Amino acid sequence: MKVVCLDLEGVLVPEIWINVAAKTGIEELRLTTRDEPDYDVLMKKRIAILNEHSLTLSDITEVINSLDLLDGAYEFLQNLRKITQVIILSDTFTEFASPLMEKLGYPTIFCNSLVVDEHDRIQDYTLRAYDGKRKAVEALKDIGFQVFAAGDSYNDLTMIRTADEGALFRAPEQIISDEKDLPCATTYQEFRSIIDTFLEK
Amino acid sequence: MKVVCLDLEGVLVPEIWINVAAKTGIEELRLTTRDEPDYDVLMKKRIAILNEHSLTLSDITEVINSLDLLDGAYEFLQNLRKITQVIILSDTFTEFASPLMEKLGYPTIFCNSLVVDEHDRIQDYTLRAYDGKRKAVEALKDIGFQVFAAGDSYNDLTMIRTADEGALFRAPEQIISDEKDLPCATTYQEFRSIIDTFLEK
Repeated sequence: MKVVCLDLEGVLVPEIWINVAAKTGIEELRLTTRDEPDYDVLMKKRIAILNEHSLTLSDITEVINSLDLLDGAYEFLQNLRKITQVIILSDTFTEFASPLMEKLGYPTIFCNSLVVDEHDRIQDYTLRAYDGKRKAVEALKDIGFQVFAAGDSYNDLTMIRTADEGALFRAPEQIISDEKDLPCATTYQEFRSIIDTFLEK
Repeated sequence: MKVVCLDLEGVLVPEIWINVAAKTGIEELRLTTRDEPDYDVLMKKRIAILNEHSLTLSDITEVINSLDLLDGAYEFLQNLRKITQVIILSDTFTEFASPLMEKLGYPTIFCNSLVVDEHDRIQDYTLRAYDGKRKAVEALKDIGFQVFAAGDSYNDLTMIRTADEGALFRAPEQIISDEKDLPCATTYQEFRSIIDTFLEK
């Protein structure tokens, strides 16, 4: 049996934090792992910024709920789910992903979770597992799946390299140039064609 | 993060082989692991019977496509997928499950697969992994999930016992009496209430 593991942000939905920054007008929320390579430090900064601005989880999920899926993502995902198993592997949080999962027709997602207090303020976050995307791919291989994995970012590379096959989707030039052996798609049609080659083997 | 693992037949859809037997009129297909405890011998007998009657995979999937979901199963599953991750763990085959997955809104399913020849005849089957349901639960626990598992049959007991929590759904009297410590539901409302207790912890 085969399974396709997909990153969420940049592959099916827009980048969540960048859009939260744009919609709330809080520019500091645009920080990414490129600015602050330590993910834990970055997340703690983001949480502190939200609390400084008195933004609750509901405020953030309202913003996320207003985001549209990437154009064509719904059809791409539905068509893929008709012919194989798909699991979304993401570093986001279940509370943030929830409104987007509804729009995507409730695919299965493995991600992380937030610690929220009784006043709906985000206090902390919990990683399901360190390097969770790669570990999920390993676990799926261990139980007999052939795994295809794809994403657009540096944090997708370990899962892509651990999978039986993989690809980049709309990755930045630098990643494409660093990872020359990986197939690379910019449209869902190209992406589907790469996945079909894996599924037909 | 939490995940709910559900058996398919008897929990969300009717028993596939029993219904194929009823709809094709081939009584021998009613054989179950109660009649032939060796699953491999049982499956090879079933495949031989299908071929004796010149039944192709398409004939069988047509029968399966005519089956209705269990009454209330769709709503139960959709509502559950809104609040947690759900993975169906089944010993059936992806080719058989496919029409039922469409009716269930394409949840993720981990199951086995058939070997089909160029004339659409079933020649053999491939297990994804031996004791695949239990191994899937172990793998999910290993990557940081708290797992709830439920089913109705003897082949669900290892996954239920491996999970953090579990339950029986519409199990035969003998299993209920053997596994007295397991919560046991006969309606989706009771079932959901047991699952909610796990999710709210």
